[in-house]
Amino acid sequence: MIIQLQPDISNSQKENLIQKVNGIGYKITEVKTQLGDYLIGIGKKEIDIRQIGQMDGIIDIHIVSDEYKLVSKKWKAKPTSVDLGDNIFIKEGEMAVITGPCSIESEEQIRSVVAHCVENDIKMMRGGVFKPRSSPYAFRGLGLDGLKLWYEIAHEAGIKIVTEVMQTSQIEEMYPYVDVYQVGARNSQNFNLLDELGKVDKAVMIKRGISGTIEELLQSAEYVFSGGNEKLILCERGIRTYERASRNTLDLNAIPILKAKSHLPVIVDPSHGIGIRAYVPQMALAGVMSGADGIIYESHEVPEKAYSDGQQTLDFAQSARLAGWIRESFAMRKGFDLL
Amino acid sequence: MIIQLQPDISNSQKENLIQKVNGIGYKITEVKTQLGDYLIGIGKKEIDIRQIGQMDGIIDIHIVSDEYKLVSKKWKAKPTSVDLGDNIFIKEGEMAVITGPCSIESEEQIRSVVAHCVENDIKMMRGGVFKPRSSPYAFRGLGLDGLKLWYEIAHEAGIKIVTEVMQTSQIEEMYPYVDVYQVGARNSQNFNLLDELGKVDKAVMIKRGISGTIEELLQSAEYVFSGGNEKLILCERGIRTYERASRNTLDLNAIPILKAKSHLPVIVDPSHGIGIRAYVPQMALAGVMSGADGIIYESHEVPEKAYSDGQQTLDFAQSARLAGWIRESFAMRKGFDLL
Amino acid sequence: MIIQLQPDISNSQKENLIQKVNGIGYKITEVKTQLGDYLIGIGKKEIDIRQIGQMDGIIDIHIVSDEYKLVSKKWKAKPTSVDLGDNIFIKEGEMAVITGPCSIESEEQIRSVVAHCVENDIKMMRGGVFKPRSSPYAFRGLGLDGLKLWYEIAHEAGIKIVTEVMQTSQIEEMYPYVDVYQVGARNSQNFNLLDELGKVDKAVMIKRGISGTIEELLQSAEYVFSGGNEKLILCERGIRTYERASRNTLDLNAIPILKAKSHLPVIVDPSHGIGIRAYVPQMALAGVMSGADGIIYESHEVPEKAYSDGQQTLDFAQSARLAGWIRESFAMRKGFDLL
Amino acid sequence: MIIQLQPDISNSQKENLIQKVNGIGYKITEVKTQLGDYLIGIGKKEIDIRQIGQMDGIIDIHIVSDEYKLVSKKWKAKPTSVDLGDNIFIKEGEMAVITGPCSIESEEQIRSVVAHCVENDIKMMRGGVFKPRSSPYAFRGLGLDGLKLWYEIAHEAGIKIVTEVMQTSQIEEMYPYVDVYQVGARNSQNFNLLDELGKVDKAVMIKRGISGTIEELLQSAEYVFSGGNEKLILCERGIRTYERASRNTLDLNAIPILKAKSHLPVIVDPSHGIGIRAYVPQMALAGVMSGADGIIYESHEVPEKAYSDGQQTLDFAQSARLAGWIRESFAMRKGFDLL
Repeated sequence: MIIQLQPDISNSQKENLIQKVNGIGYKITEVKTQLGDYLIGIGKKEIDIRQIGQMDGIIDIHIVSDEYKLVSKKWKAKPTSVDLGDNIFIKEGEMAVITGPCSIESEEQIRSVVAHCVENDIKMMRGGVFKPRSSPYAFRGLGLDGLKLWYEIAHEAGIKIVTEVMQTSQIEEMYPYVDVYQVGARNSQNFNLLDELGKVDKAVMIKRGISGTIEELLQSAEYVFSGGNEKLILCERGIRTYERASRNTLDLNAIPILKAKSHLPVIVDPSHGIGIRAYVPQMALAGVMSGADGIIYESHEVPEKAYSDGQQTLDFAQSARLAGWIRESFAMRKGFDLL
Repeated sequence: MIIQLQPDISNSQKENLIQKVNGIGYKITEVKTQLGDYLIGIGKKEIDIRQIGQMDGIIDIHIVSDEYKLVSKKWKAKPTSVDLGDNIFIKEGEMAVITGPCSIESEEQIRSVVAHCVENDIKMMRGGVFKPRSSPYAFRGLGLDGLKLWYEIAHEAGIKIVTEVMQTSQIEEMYPYVDVYQVGARNSQNFNLLDELGKVDKAVMIKRGISGTIEELLQSAEYVFSGGNEKLILCERGIRTYERASRNTLDLNAIPILKAKSHLPVIVDPSHGIGIRAYVPQMALAGVMSGADGIIYESHEVPEKAYSDGQQTLDFAQSARLAGWIRESFAMRKGFDLL
Repeated sequence: MIIQLQPDISNSQKENLIQKVNGIGYKITEVKTQLGDYLIGIGKKEIDIRQIGQMDGIIDIHIVSDEYKLVSKKWKAKPTSVDLGDNIFIKEGEMAVITGPCSIESEEQIRSVVAHCVENDIKMMRGGVFKPRSSPYAFRGLGLDGLKLWYEIAHEAGIKIVTEVMQTSQIEEMYPYVDVYQVGARNSQNFNLLDELGKVDKAVMIKRGISGTIEELLQSAEYVFSGGNEKLILCERGIRTYERASRNTLDLNAIPILKAKSHLPVIVDPSHGIGIRAYVPQMALAGVMSGADGIIYESHEVPEKAYSDGQQTLDFAQSARLAGWIRESFAMRKGFDLL
Repeated sequence: MIIQLQPDISNSQKENLIQKVNGIGYKITEVKTQLGDYLIGIGKKEIDIRQIGQMDGIIDIHIVSDEYKLVSKKWKAKPTSVDLGDNIFIKEGEMAVITGPCSIESEEQIRSVVAHCVENDIKMMRGGVFKPRSSPYAFRGLGLDGLKLWYEIAHEAGIKIVTEVMQTSQIEEMYPYVDVYQVGARNSQNFNLLDELGKVDKAVMIKRGISGTIEELLQSAEYVFSGGNEKLILCERGIRTYERASRNTLDLNAIPILKAKSHLPVIVDPSHGIGIRAYVPQMALAGVMSGADGIIYESHEVPEKAYSDGQQTLDFAQSARLAGWIRESFAMRKGFDLL
């Protein structure tokens, strides 16, 4: 049960409400986000919500049978628009294009990618400064200093920054320099990290776990939302299956399913999804047609020299063409009367 | 090693060749197809193929390191065009649209689908007369009589027939009434069936196994080709993964990978790939963008009344729109300089 | 619904029964096996079975909610004992040990394995004469001649033969020389083959599909049983997962689950299950403890020289020790009060 | 390359060494653990290690081709013994039995489990005080207060505590009350957590990821070891596959493979591995036979009333019998000459 509260609800009205809902055997969680206040009631008893709906201080009340509540489309049909400022949005009805290298490597590299973005009207740039690496001996990224440098160059050029946060202690130090916190596939069920990101007033993009279900991705998003942050984006990046011919199995089925279940924008990462440079454009365009609200892919001036993921990274010429094709395909898709 | 023989090679020339290749430790398999004659040499020793290349009776010789040989692009870069007659092809550069019900049910049903195909310029119709069912107590199809009836109605209207063959004994009895023999996912490693289909002069479409790898699909195709039949089509129809929100996981990564590895046409089945009617169009269009040469999807006048697979079957209005979108998307994709 | 018929039921009694059951909206399938006659009723309406239970000619009647019926423990709690003759059984309460090479290769090889079995009191020998190979160019087995030779040598020594049948046309020709027809993992949903094996009066061992579910394995067994053959054995041989460190993932969870759901004996194949010789004994013993009724593993006089599967094949010294450990472990397990 | 340093190596000797190894193009990571000092050299050039081996201050030097180094058996064949104090070990050659509830719930519950452990000579107790829950609205555990209470009761009784740590900030506050920090399946690639656990002088048990490979589990262990903590235990708890009849697929293949690749002790969690109470004992005993050094399973006085995981939790009578069977099976296994 989701009870949407009026902004000016009085304490006694809220107390009354909580008492009432507790009284019928529901456990209450209070949620305050940047955009609204909610009471989430968890219980099993069937109830007549009109009894509660008449009470004072309520905008609306919904029964949501999904395991996740606030991210469900069952109570909020209107798509969530994530506002990054400067008239840049990730939302249904637009097509976000996000590109950049796997790792932020140097000032020179940052400048080259930023220039590439500017030339191609790409407003958001991805890149890792804290890198999750399966081996402890591998390059772990430039860290906060790299992020500060990146921020300086990117923001001068009007480019927004999407970058991975790996642990709660990084959230605060990264805050001034980040536009979208990315939660990586390996951290998609790091519930403490999700909890803490709920307390932040910046967008969060959650990647699907390496073998995460669609349901689990939505529950992870619920963690952030119920922590207080509605600025959420979901990302399909391929799942682990038995097939070895591609790095991961890009599960585009997830796109229409996520769009139907949730009001959150959904983007596709074809670079990790297939892991082979030559086929990234096809999978990006397939992602557009499947209904995605954005595409995030890896690019680098000289992919062969990239510190990591070179084999799945486009060069700037490829990236420029792809950005154009993505927009053309999206324009065509908008003309189709898809669900 | 693939040795392409001249059509007029003499017996003694061929004997010489075989002796020579055997002499260097390679095992020879002779392959005669509708379109050409080949010797396949299997061995591990490194050899200088020019020694053999100079011999009489040879068109060309290639070393193919893949486990599959004749279906590999390493020796035949030119895409295979499968000719179904009456100027109907399944091939790279065109977009085959194939639709029809899961099961052939009745004359009335056949007539309605055929009419739908004719109206929408769809040249190929799918449908099952022999149905593989996991339960022995389920409806197993109308059998040969259903096929004959279907053939009569469809061919009068100029529509080609794509239908599943389940066992070797059916090949011959189905032969007069079939344009494309479909090998179902459960039979994709039924090697005896594949062997026998190699002896037939009609097209064969092999569906990827329920948990088949891309490599295994190509090896299954090699069975048919090396049995003598070059008229082959590959079909991605979704694989089995841990994800339960969709019927299968449509693996569109497989499309560019198959197209790069093999000269055979590749088509996509979004109906089985996602298993949910409302999302079949998105996945069909994603299939087009991923590089497919055709789309096969399920349709029925009243999907809710279909004997099987109703939940993933489009009605005729949906099908008509989708057929149009597929063609528009394909036209756009052709304009992109994709691999 | 399973109606167990009396052996001497009259035609008119049976007609009455069928009419009655049809009348309440159930579809009837008649099943005649070597051991009994049944009517299987498939329908959805809730009924009071006592109405039918009072009719003449019936031994018993059961409602079975599982998708599979005759192989379910819900109507037949007593474990099925598969009698191979000469006092050799595969059944709960005994521990079948089955060993032999992947492929039958030569008379000399057969004699060496048979001698090994005799020395170690192993009553059943496995081996392939028809080999399913993913590549059409690989060794496909000695065929029927190999089987005849094997039969002669093995039966003189009192050893039973377990071997794979790949297609319906082989069933009859193999019949005189086979004690247990093995249905391989790739054919576990070859429904025509299963149908035909239902008509045979010899034991059938069905291997779980490469990515087959437990439910599908039971439905495949239902095909054979409902075709008329109750002499059925189930076999877990590892499933396909993302893990690449072993050939397959041996799913021992399946053993107690299959034993709880079905009255059929269940055996474990650790050789294919892990695919690494050094670890076959551990997995065999784990299989015993998980509740299996038998272990089937590969052995060869000189595994390194085996035509196929050498890397997972034990030599005779290893096999002799393992056979002993299997029996010791089974004796201990019998002392535990496991489910 | 692993260079094991003498405890009394001088700074100048170490400098010389590092210079030498850097000079041949290897990147050096210094590792100081509770038990020894190491230099890890990462590079690709082939080198003659004798040149380095002659230098002063070195105990030994090894080339380790695995992605993981310090946890590999290639340099340290002797099994690691994890000493929990009071003569309690987790190590090869012994069989650790660890039991307890999913969640720590109350003082009464703690007392009942501790009494059960004492009666059955079980020295280690598991239980969660910080619970990772996929839904933010579910019970998240009693937290630190619960741990303190548990510690008091358990340690008075001589029972060691195994419990999950979810984030780095918990490590220090939990320290006084924990004997084995458990890293849960969802955190098995939370590299910051692993890094921090490397700095602690207490044992760490790492559970395999939900879809983690064996290779990834070993790399996660390498994180902790290279951070400075050699007291490591690996745990197989089932992986995610397509099979839905069990909660997870217990991959016992992993046991002999992990034991062959690493010197670390390996334990099996049959409760999560199958997820069905009635079959936990079979899978526990299968785990013993597969070569495990310990079994961890869930128990509770009244499983039906447990806050979580009741369906896979044994009652005390079942647990008492199982503990005995585990020991008997282990005694038998020790008599077998397994790898």
